[in-house]
Amino acid sequence: MIREANELALARINAAEPTLVDVVQARDILPEDDQVIFHAGPPLAWEQMCGPLQGAILGVCVYEGWAADLDEARQLVDSGAVKLRHNHSASIVGPMTGMVSPSMPLIKVENRAFGNVAFSTFNEGIGKVMRFGANDAEVLNRLHWLAEEFGPAIKAAIASAGSIDLRVIIAKAIAMGDELHQRNIAASALFFREIMPHISRTCTDLDVIERISSFLYTNDQFFLNLAMASAKASIDPIKNIEYCTLVSAMSRNGTNFGIKVSALGDQWFEAPVEMPQGLYFPGFTQEDANPDIGDSAIVECVGFGGMSMAAAPAVTQFVGIDGSEAAYDITHKMFTITEGRSQTYTVPTIDFIGIPVGINIVDVVDSGIRPYINSGIAHREPGVGQVGAGVVYPPMKCFEQALEAFADKYSKDLGL
Amino acid sequence: MIREANELALARINAAEPTLVDVVQARDILPEDDQVIFHAGPPLAWEQMCGPLQGAILGVCVYEGWAADLDEARQLVDSGAVKLRHNHSASIVGPMTGMVSPSMPLIKVENRAFGNVAFSTFNEGIGKVMRFGANDAEVLNRLHWLAEEFGPAIKAAIASAGSIDLRVIIAKAIAMGDELHQRNIAASALFFREIMPHISRTCTDLDVIERISSFLYTNDQFFLNLAMASAKASIDPIKNIEYCTLVSAMSRNGTNFGIKVSALGDQWFEAPVEMPQGLYFPGFTQEDANPDIGDSAIVECVGFGGMSMAAAPAVTQFVGIDGSEAAYDITHKMFTITEGRSQTYTVPTIDFIGIPVGINIVDVVDSGIRPYINSGIAHREPGVGQVGAGVVYPPMKCFEQALEAFADKYSKDLGL
Repeated sequence: MIREANELALARINAAEPTLVDVVQARDILPEDDQVIFHAGPPLAWEQMCGPLQGAILGVCVYEGWAADLDEARQLVDSGAVKLRHNHSASIVGPMTGMVSPSMPLIKVENRAFGNVAFSTFNEGIGKVMRFGANDAEVLNRLHWLAEEFGPAIKAAIASAGSIDLRVIIAKAIAMGDELHQRNIAASALFFREIMPHISRTCTDLDVIERISSFLYTNDQFFLNLAMASAKASIDPIKNIEYCTLVSAMSRNGTNFGIKVSALGDQWFEAPVEMPQGLYFPGFTQEDANPDIGDSAIVECVGFGGMSMAAAPAVTQFVGIDGSEAAYDITHKMFTITEGRSQTYTVPTIDFIGIPVGINIVDVVDSGIRPYINSGIAHREPGVGQVGAGVVYPPMKCFEQALEAFADKYSKDLGL
Repeated sequence: MIREANELALARINAAEPTLVDVVQARDILPEDDQVIFHAGPPLAWEQMCGPLQGAILGVCVYEGWAADLDEARQLVDSGAVKLRHNHSASIVGPMTGMVSPSMPLIKVENRAFGNVAFSTFNEGIGKVMRFGANDAEVLNRLHWLAEEFGPAIKAAIASAGSIDLRVIIAKAIAMGDELHQRNIAASALFFREIMPHISRTCTDLDVIERISSFLYTNDQFFLNLAMASAKASIDPIKNIEYCTLVSAMSRNGTNFGIKVSALGDQWFEAPVEMPQGLYFPGFTQEDANPDIGDSAIVECVGFGGMSMAAAPAVTQFVGIDGSEAAYDITHKMFTITEGRSQTYTVPTIDFIGIPVGINIVDVVDSGIRPYINSGIAHREPGVGQVGAGVVYPPMKCFEQALEAFADKYSKDLGL
């Protein structure tokens, strides 16, 4: 029964058709319209949140105009007036702190094979950005520009295109050395090339076109958020398959790492996050690093990111892995904990083998091998931003707890 | 003395800084202003030319307005009124038939390290295009658009940028699975991303921006011609180094393959071209194929194309090589006939080794190993276009003749 369930889940992931269909205002899809902020990872109380997450939340209060400055924002949040929710509860995924508030624009990705949708914010670029906990005027001005000029222009361009098949872009990008977590340069350039003819058809202001093309030109990670929403939309159809032991979500809030398992529905299995191991930008060290954070590990659930290290030998120099052979070894190792291989996304560098898909908690616990996650590293103080990139693992305890819960739920069937 | 000369040549190739600096009209750089057409490969008489080359030349006569139709064009060329010259004589390189005529726009690439320049046409796209010998109204209309709208817009955009560092784009593209001969998707997308902000700054007509971005969006091979001009500009500084046995040019006119060798100046060493071995588009077979043609083998002289097969495992599916391991083997084999490795262009898939640079005629003759060239395949009838892609080799006789000439020239020094 487990095998059949896992095969069904694998087939659903393989059948996914992630498609960019629209840009919406977060306000329009959120369950409530007042002062609410969505964050990355499993649910978490304000007091338990790490520096960058608190910093980002305070910045959002200023961005939304709920507070005049960060001090006032802290009083507001301390008072409990701002509701804090986690992104996954609203089918949203956001990298690092994962901030989503009512006036932000969200990309809407539909899985055309199943009709379900997922959302993500626009990627802000690299360096001092809100997703890494930065919150000064430069950061807030960029967010306003994304909401007021960039978002509407992309929305109109998508309408002109009808929709944009992200599956095709992702497949090409994997053949071009992206793993779609810490390396998105190919996907970003391909997306840019695809959207520009439509922008030039729908946008009547040359200055706007210039700002949009300049922004996209400088942002090699722009596609990350599209990859995340694609991954979320692709894996959601495996939720709640009885007996299925495949991971349906992985996420971190900077304090805890949480995983979900298909047969176990919406329950998070959590344990304290680990520290990413990697390379730091000049002037920063591991001392400055915040523990693991972000919804971005959703991409590893469908085989991107650290799982597909072999697809992206060039990313090894960014996350601190030693060379192309090591990259190939990592992906081959991941096959031992996954249910199968992608039929859509293949890796030219290892003879066009499909990427490893469907993390099986039984195999993880049995083998002691955990999924590789490629991740950005945030400064642990609020307001600073990204300080490096590296590799991180989900705590084994998450998988062990999930397997125990699975055994409990199915104890009769399993003859326990 | 040979070793020192070859090391000097290798150092010059490694020091190259190919930079896109301008778009000019061919008329402005050609030695004469009247009815002249430049073609690919070593010099060749009209009667000896293959079908696609003759077809392209007739098409150009109509394009330039020298003849009303192809029949009139044939009379004109037969009469000897149209001068036919080869591209290399004017520092130009063009893919396949390599057509250049006075009113065509040319990209100008400067090697900033040495000050020399090289030129190429704009890539027309794939399918029915003049470089593959097609010559109907659709083909000529596109050439007019390239000359009258696209070229001036790109010229203005380059002026806005100052210049565009092609070395950086090429280095990134090799890390993204391009070998810059039959696979240029990454370089084309990166170039597009770099030029668009400048086009939106300099172009005031939204319809023009739409046409330019639509054209570039659909042309994965756009960068090929930039890569060729970069290769030509990068290798020209090794011309005429005494005792140097490295190849300074390779080119084919559809009838003969010619190579030049550094120490032997501008002399072509020629032999009949071979047939490319490869894969054909649906509906076509080797029966339809024209023998090897084009200046594009200039890219192999600096280590791109077939020499860098390992960089582009995905190209193997296009040119008919069997998988990624075969691709890695080919590049490793190429190291046995090259003087060294690139310090600029490294291949992530094989542990960031530099691409093989500096084809040594002594090593080719000694080992019996010939350079791999990735090539498009033209239909052998005029007017049809591209029918496939594959791998082709320079005839061994070119290298043997060159080595004999080298021995003759330096017989005293070599104690012969």
